[in-house]
Amino acid sequence: MAAWARQTRIALRPHAKTHKSAQIARLQENAGARGIACATVAEAELLASAGIGGLLLTAPQMGDGKFARIAKINSAHDIAVVVDHIAQVDGLAASSRAGDKPLPVLVDVDVGHSRTGVADLGEGVRLAQSIAASDKLKFVGIQGFAGHAQHIPRPDERNSAADNAADILRRFAKALTEVGLDCELISGSGTGTYRRDAAGPYNELQVGSYVFMDSDYARIVDESGAGPCFEPSLFVLATVVSVNIPGQVTVDAGSKALATNGPPPCNLVGAPKGSSYRFAGDEHGIVGIPAGHKAPALGDRLLIGATHCDPTVNLHACYHVIDAGQAQTWSIGARYGE
Amino acid sequence: MAAWARQTRIALRPHAKTHKSAQIARLQENAGARGIACATVAEAELLASAGIGGLLLTAPQMGDGKFARIAKINSAHDIAVVVDHIAQVDGLAASSRAGDKPLPVLVDVDVGHSRTGVADLGEGVRLAQSIAASDKLKFVGIQGFAGHAQHIPRPDERNSAADNAADILRRFAKALTEVGLDCELISGSGTGTYRRDAAGPYNELQVGSYVFMDSDYARIVDESGAGPCFEPSLFVLATVVSVNIPGQVTVDAGSKALATNGPPPCNLVGAPKGSSYRFAGDEHGIVGIPAGHKAPALGDRLLIGATHCDPTVNLHACYHVIDAGQAQTWSIGARYGE
Repeated sequence: MAAWARQTRIALRPHAKTHKSAQIARLQENAGARGIACATVAEAELLASAGIGGLLLTAPQMGDGKFARIAKINSAHDIAVVVDHIAQVDGLAASSRAGDKPLPVLVDVDVGHSRTGVADLGEGVRLAQSIAASDKLKFVGIQGFAGHAQHIPRPDERNSAADNAADILRRFAKALTEVGLDCELISGSGTGTYRRDAAGPYNELQVGSYVFMDSDYARIVDESGAGPCFEPSLFVLATVVSVNIPGQVTVDAGSKALATNGPPPCNLVGAPKGSSYRFAGDEHGIVGIPAGHKAPALGDRLLIGATHCDPTVNLHACYHVIDAGQAQTWSIGARYGE
Repeated sequence: MAAWARQTRIALRPHAKTHKSAQIARLQENAGARGIACATVAEAELLASAGIGGLLLTAPQMGDGKFARIAKINSAHDIAVVVDHIAQVDGLAASSRAGDKPLPVLVDVDVGHSRTGVADLGEGVRLAQSIAASDKLKFVGIQGFAGHAQHIPRPDERNSAADNAADILRRFAKALTEVGLDCELISGSGTGTYRRDAAGPYNELQVGSYVFMDSDYARIVDESGAGPCFEPSLFVLATVVSVNIPGQVTVDAGSKALATNGPPPCNLVGAPKGSSYRFAGDEHGIVGIPAGHKAPALGDRLLIGATHCDPTVNLHACYHVIDAGQAQTWSIGARYGE
């Protein structure tokens, strides 16, 4: 991704919601990322404490506690945040610390995802003006995340949704320029639409899933029809714990080990080609073995490819990173309550 | 549940896979439970280190590491385990520590769930005999978990599946008695079938979900048609973070806060009656507000009832326990890698 972005002359701000890992963020930074996107204040705190710069909090936050934590990060580190309501502008300004640099703020634009953001052009301009009017804050641009477009399988339909989102952002940027507010940052995109989005108006891409390339994204072919550019890298290690039924084995990885909101896992390393996986409770999965093939033995280890990486990572406390036969353990942070 | 069990003269060994909490296990023990069931070695270690007695590991384990950890618990605490294969019998015997009391072992019987357990009667008898023949192990009985029966909505169909499971266990117990192996323990059941299962041959019930009573179980009416006996007690606290679209608000609880493999959350405290919840990514959910009702305001807090408690608990590091206006924080342990 870093090589493609360099070649395409577009900036990357990869999303930490995928990995929740300071080590992976550092690798992305070293590969040329301008910064790292975060979905939660806890993710931003994790990365700030590891010295990762260029943080962007991509979801509007609410509550004095959250505003104070953002102000604290801004005191010692480098963070920008998005807002979609004047109450957030007021709250962030009120929570700023005396003597600190102004907090960089972007207006979150609803580009059709209907989750967060401002859909109305006039409202977006007023919000940007209120940011610019505060001496505690600094208006730096707009964000639009076309979450609804990322997983559309057909390239033409996906491109169409991405283009509509881009058009909305273009209109917001133009309206802001007309009132004297230039967008230094136009941020957004994802692993499903990043190639299309490189055409603009984005000047940075918040791609996340590419780093693990879950199999739901992997089935989405790119515009050229050449298939995905990234190899799946995230697997859950499971042990065969029961073998009493012909044609299947039971493994000790279920809905507490693998996110259930993707397609069923299909990439099973260590099982015969054509084997299937189905969830069988919190701690178990059942691997179906195709007829005529030898089933894995009791105690054998299988690698189960994650089909939805972000919520699968969130189920674990660490990665075991395998590189050229060497293993390292990297912690997964910023989970709820940690 | 404890009151009902006392009245019915059946023993309880509530399942810790639901709560992963030493404090809740202690409450269950104090209410009269004979012990606590665990799904993983980590859960057993958590409870053993808190001094909880009468542990039963309800899933067959594999691997020298697991066997050694079980032996270590058996050295200082009180644990029994299930097996469904001779390799587990041999492994547990080989991992026993010199001078320790024999490890109590149950044969896991496949009562129609087709996940773990022995389905063949002769095989079950041979397995029990091999346990009894080891001076490191002690045969104490059988287990059968009718996981396939627990969530069947219609009482007659659920009872029928439960009765079939009970008949299988009865046949195994009889065959074992005939070879001189009495079943001190016949363990199994769950929140969906516990009333039916009290008729036997079970002499203890491994009920788990009742303690939080997720809404998927709550829709299952009991035999009398009187509805569930337990009130839902598990909620995720969420904050309204975006209010720009009429008829809906966005909250900061999504698929990293609530398990997605139950029905969509429907018990929304703080939102108007008739409000709906849908998942909108890792960190967001969208609450639909019925026409004519006032939507919650930006920054308002909602309680979202969990529809599948066990995997929802697994997403969090602690409970905030509210009793008579007082709050305590209890930790959630034994999650992967912790």
